[in-house]
Amino acid sequence: MDVVMDAEAMNAFLATEFPQVNGQFRVDHVGEEGVTARLLVNDSHLRPGGTISGPSMFALADVSIYCVVLSRIGKVALAVTTNASIDFLRKPVAGKDLLAKCRLLKLGRALAVADALIYSEGSDDPVARCSMTYSIPPKR
Amino acid sequence: MDVVMDAEAMNAFLATEFPQVNGQFRVDHVGEEGVTARLLVNDSHLRPGGTISGPSMFALADVSIYCVVLSRIGKVALAVTTNASIDFLRKPVAGKDLLAKCRLLKLGRALAVADALIYSEGSDDPVARCSMTYSIPPKR
Amino acid sequence: MDVVMDAEAMNAFLATEFPQVNGQFRVDHVGEEGVTARLLVNDSHLRPGGTISGPSMFALADVSIYCVVLSRIGKVALAVTTNASIDFLRKPVAGKDLLAKCRLLKLGRALAVADALIYSEGSDDPVARCSMTYSIPPKR
Amino acid sequence: MDVVMDAEAMNAFLATEFPQVNGQFRVDHVGEEGVTARLLVNDSHLRPGGTISGPSMFALADVSIYCVVLSRIGKVALAVTTNASIDFLRKPVAGKDLLAKCRLLKLGRALAVADALIYSEGSDDPVARCSMTYSIPPKR
Repeated sequence: MDVVMDAEAMNAFLATEFPQVNGQFRVDHVGEEGVTARLLVNDSHLRPGGTISGPSMFALADVSIYCVVLSRIGKVALAVTTNASIDFLRKPVAGKDLLAKCRLLKLGRALAVADALIYSEGSDDPVARCSMTYSIPPKR
Repeated sequence: MDVVMDAEAMNAFLATEFPQVNGQFRVDHVGEEGVTARLLVNDSHLRPGGTISGPSMFALADVSIYCVVLSRIGKVALAVTTNASIDFLRKPVAGKDLLAKCRLLKLGRALAVADALIYSEGSDDPVARCSMTYSIPPKR
Repeated sequence: MDVVMDAEAMNAFLATEFPQVNGQFRVDHVGEEGVTARLLVNDSHLRPGGTISGPSMFALADVSIYCVVLSRIGKVALAVTTNASIDFLRKPVAGKDLLAKCRLLKLGRALAVADALIYSEGSDDPVARCSMTYSIPPKR
Repeated sequence: MDVVMDAEAMNAFLATEFPQVNGQFRVDHVGEEGVTARLLVNDSHLRPGGTISGPSMFALADVSIYCVVLSRIGKVALAVTTNASIDFLRKPVAGKDLLAKCRLLKLGRALAVADALIYSEGSDDPVARCSMTYSIPPKR
């Protein structure tokens, strides 16, 4: 299935639809192979010991997977996550943004499945792995 | 294993160790059968359509499961989540807090496993189900 | 939603539809609160150290969750598992059957979600926890 | 970490340690990038509609992930799965073996995490995605 939204269109859509998280996430790249999204890490994402909170990583995975679905089906603000599984693998590198590299595994009529690896920028060792299922509203 | 921290001690510990989330969560009850924790829902948790964001529900599950582990082993600020699985089941009721009812399934030497059902306050139908694994640091 | 199949009807259905696993599983109980299903443990389910294999526990969870869905919607042989998450908690007790106690968390138009705790018969400590999503074919 | 067992050594180890599943699985390839394992599909793996059973796919993922861990740490028969998450994506192609392509994401002192995509042989669309955590016994 063709890519129908690029990174610029995606960022504009997120800014409009998700004003609550505006400024926290940015889509760096959208392509045939998937989406790369970034968490612009700030103090609100940190936890004791200087690590990045689990919910912040979950939110980044959610954004990247939402965007990889939208990149193929266009703007569907009401697609919803039905299931997520996440493994936390390593402590992120202090002072670095997080990058989620996401690939689409299935795009069905009603369900889409994708997974993502999350990295500290500049590192090759993933800090988290996440897979999610999205339910796509009928008659899109 | 005996319960070694009550709700008051838990709330004091969270306020000290997790100032970033202070005011968002409250432990309502700690007992033999588990922990009940509350997300004090505000506008920052909402998403298009008036639903509560997935990361907010994930964060609530994380807090409740962290607390059920701590209720048995005492203050261990560095216990970390290694895995989480979450199912989003229904749209939460507008204008209601969320309650996570959490039970401990295993407390081993190195790993603890718990699960939680999340409800809109006053409703009997769960809005989410979550299970998590925590890694417990050695020599506790 | 009412219970429309009892344990006897369920066992007859499994014997007809799943001859490959005939004799391995039995539904002990079907009720409002859920389903209890049994793995009749034999040597084919064992692994080094006398434990029961992960795939055997997965299969038991799958049967119990399939049955709890069917107990409400009737015979739908083509309902399929779309997602499963399983935690292995303890080594099962040698020489005992396994019992899965399963509860239905959501029964939607297109998706059903349930979870199960698995026990060695006669023990109160769960050996595994599993949650699954089933996709229900349209126009049932 | 270096690869310390090749496919031949792995197949010999599986035949010795897991005689119950002998003849069902074969490791095709072990390399730096991961392991490819095969389910030699037979009638015992099939379900109504000609699909391959979920537990059979789970078992294949389990074997492939076990092998990718062993390929780095050597023969440790008692490493155990603690958590698994699996998404079933498509119906497998009839009459084809299944191949699991597995990569190691983390190899820690106590825990290893890997994921796998499962394909019908000759197809580029995955039929399942699976991630698992293994607990590694101390003093290996």
